[in-house]
Amino acid sequence: MNKIFLLPFFLFLLQTNSVFAQEAEKDEDAFFIRSIYDQALVNGSAYDWLFHLSENIGGRISGSDEAQEAVEYTKKIMDTLALDKVWLQECTVPHWVRGDMEIAQIMPFGSVEKKTMQAAALGNSGGTGAQGITADVIEVMELADLDKLGRENIEGKIVFFNRPFNQKYIRTFYAYGGAVDQRVFGPAKAAKYGAVGTLVRSMTGRLDDVPHTGVTIFEEGIEPIAALAISTNDAEFLSDQIKQNKTVKVFIRANPKKMPDAISYNVIGEIKGSEKPEEIILVGGHLDSWDIGGGAHDDGAGCVHSMEVFNILKNLNYKPKRTIRCVLFMNEENGLAGATEYAKVSNENKEFHMAAIESDAGGFTPRGFSCDAVDEIFKDKYKQLTQWLPLLEPYRLAFEKGGGGADITPLKSQNGILIGFRPDSQRYFDYHHTKIDRIEAVNKRELELGAASITSLVYLLDKYGLDNKE
Amino acid sequence: MNKIFLLPFFLFLLQTNSVFAQEAEKDEDAFFIRSIYDQALVNGSAYDWLFHLSENIGGRISGSDEAQEAVEYTKKIMDTLALDKVWLQECTVPHWVRGDMEIAQIMPFGSVEKKTMQAAALGNSGGTGAQGITADVIEVMELADLDKLGRENIEGKIVFFNRPFNQKYIRTFYAYGGAVDQRVFGPAKAAKYGAVGTLVRSMTGRLDDVPHTGVTIFEEGIEPIAALAISTNDAEFLSDQIKQNKTVKVFIRANPKKMPDAISYNVIGEIKGSEKPEEIILVGGHLDSWDIGGGAHDDGAGCVHSMEVFNILKNLNYKPKRTIRCVLFMNEENGLAGATEYAKVSNENKEFHMAAIESDAGGFTPRGFSCDAVDEIFKDKYKQLTQWLPLLEPYRLAFEKGGGGADITPLKSQNGILIGFRPDSQRYFDYHHTKIDRIEAVNKRELELGAASITSLVYLLDKYGLDNKE
Repeated sequence: MNKIFLLPFFLFLLQTNSVFAQEAEKDEDAFFIRSIYDQALVNGSAYDWLFHLSENIGGRISGSDEAQEAVEYTKKIMDTLALDKVWLQECTVPHWVRGDMEIAQIMPFGSVEKKTMQAAALGNSGGTGAQGITADVIEVMELADLDKLGRENIEGKIVFFNRPFNQKYIRTFYAYGGAVDQRVFGPAKAAKYGAVGTLVRSMTGRLDDVPHTGVTIFEEGIEPIAALAISTNDAEFLSDQIKQNKTVKVFIRANPKKMPDAISYNVIGEIKGSEKPEEIILVGGHLDSWDIGGGAHDDGAGCVHSMEVFNILKNLNYKPKRTIRCVLFMNEENGLAGATEYAKVSNENKEFHMAAIESDAGGFTPRGFSCDAVDEIFKDKYKQLTQWLPLLEPYRLAFEKGGGGADITPLKSQNGILIGFRPDSQRYFDYHHTKIDRIEAVNKRELELGAASITSLVYLLDKYGLDNKE
Repeated sequence: MNKIFLLPFFLFLLQTNSVFAQEAEKDEDAFFIRSIYDQALVNGSAYDWLFHLSENIGGRISGSDEAQEAVEYTKKIMDTLALDKVWLQECTVPHWVRGDMEIAQIMPFGSVEKKTMQAAALGNSGGTGAQGITADVIEVMELADLDKLGRENIEGKIVFFNRPFNQKYIRTFYAYGGAVDQRVFGPAKAAKYGAVGTLVRSMTGRLDDVPHTGVTIFEEGIEPIAALAISTNDAEFLSDQIKQNKTVKVFIRANPKKMPDAISYNVIGEIKGSEKPEEIILVGGHLDSWDIGGGAHDDGAGCVHSMEVFNILKNLNYKPKRTIRCVLFMNEENGLAGATEYAKVSNENKEFHMAAIESDAGGFTPRGFSCDAVDEIFKDKYKQLTQWLPLLEPYRLAFEKGGGGADITPLKSQNGILIGFRPDSQRYFDYHHTKIDRIEAVNKRELELGAASITSLVYLLDKYGLDNKE
């Protein structure tokens, strides 16, 4: 046999060998990822940590004692995770205090008994004075309605924003996105037209009796007025009253205080990469929460997800090639002071975040990851990520395009990829920013599966990188 | 999660909508399926019906007044759904009654206070007499352990089955499958060796204080003995006591009664197909539940899912080509009398169930459908189903191989396809067969998405069929 004829055969052999080698690597990855899930489900600490954050520490708004406790507690945990370095990064945070329990009451049409509505002052909102305010209520569905009504119809009144969630969205975050302008920008806009207070229908699609707080923004130069979220059931009731009887008066009282800015911290830990320490893989959540409830899903879950990545990798004796860093950001909820400071220092140090993963959508059953990057690199990096789908699909994970998360967005300019962990969204707004966002709302296995999903992606990112140009 | 930075998110939304619109224009089916989801989420009745079944009627074990109420209530609903025919199909069901509250107590080692364990008698189990029984407890992990121990070590004792769920399974049903032999077959096997009673660790992976009942089987000729599920926390405690102190005595009392068999009913409604009435698409769940709790997830959810299919199709003015039939089976939990009768009559009438879909895995977020059929046709039919994936994947639905459901399994021999609705399984065994399987455990949107998912599949099955040989 002529040797030339053997060439294709040898080539085939070489090819086959390399396919075999790839297959073997894939098998090794499949084994390792399975071990990650085993660790999370059998030997995990995420739920115990979350229990402490949510139940023993509780709501931890920026500037509060609880926020400081959370800083110290999570630093103490990171100190046990065999990291190369754990540190606190100082940042200056706003410090808003709810003060006495807020009150919102209505005299229902034809009744002599007042009805108390379930209310919670919005973060950064102002007060009514100790006596409270009684005023006529005017209901609006859109911010633009205020422009049409004008000062003559708004001055001296309480504006009630009552646009509900659009239930047709399959993902509840879209419904939130379609309603939250009322809470964030409504009170300031009403104040500009002379309103004395505002009520905002709670940001949830569920009809229930729990008020949902959250941030509202008064720009420089606008004096904050009282702004209370009321429960969706009370919003329906109030709206009915207005329909029955054009003039409806409501009594509100709230006395929150804006304290001087405070010093607080991001809590950071990292394992230095053994081969490419300059390529950073960040995984994080935010440590602050609203003051009511325990901040279990928002975002205690993201914090313990992030720390659990290191716990799992430690238990599996994994030594990363790249630098893996856990960042628990302070003050995501009302200002992003921690995220801003982190990005500033990172840029000053000319760091490169090859990938940044944020978990800030709750501790529910994992569905996948949303991915974002600057236009120039997005397609290429996204394609590389999706090559790992065969390893992640058995765990029912998918990739999609979409935002990474508020805390990591400032890192986008470093030309890495931003990734948001995306668990099932159906129950998120049942608990979001309420007193019932507590450990009882968290299913232990769902939380653990989240940690395993994120760890699996961190492992693949670390092992293979994202073909980064030198 | 803070939504100040919503702009990218809104842009993403616009993008998604426009892509969706283009796709939809090309595809009438995509439009129709989207309308199905809209109906379920905005105009659905599933949650209200489930509220009534779970809270107003409550636990509805076969033969009980509650089961009869459920028959009458669901028939009344079906009468409003513009069906061609609604009827009751008689069947003879067992009638087991729990009797007085069961008790299981232990004297912890070194204590003078007895500790009451959270216990629930298993369906079909026997009694202890009014005085109760005190006996030594022997702990086993496997049924085979009883053979090794033999009568000399078992006679006169209470056998305690304590094998936990294997947490490593990603799907909780696998963990259930790996543990439930203890509950179903353990008590009878212990009785054969002379045990006077049995305790079974509750069938859940969670450590909590809620006993999970369920069926146990005593074959003809074996006198039923007392058999109580105890909560997982109590199982851990009891096991610890046994480890500390080899002889541990437990007091148990239970006095369930086996009543004479009763007459009950499957509730059935159908719309006759306009073109191929002989091809039946069945959608169903089971109407009976255990007596404790409200049977909200198991299987009130499956019943209202099934009825909601017709509610949605009615609201959309959809006229099916094939016969669509809703069957609410009686007595799935302890005997399958309804399913057996249904299949018998169907076979006598030479019916052909082209497809049968059962929802009996709870009212959680949909993940997809498992499919089963006789070997000769499975591959071909499964392939046809998966051709619809592009229409269902936007709703995060997938097909997989696996069982259809206990009630529809007897229809397999008709050479159609059996389909099990498969929602997310993580929380199912938090509630399964307990007093907390109530409406509070159900998220309205998750329930509605389930109904929409099933309706979408019914629509595709009806419109395109499964290439059935004439």
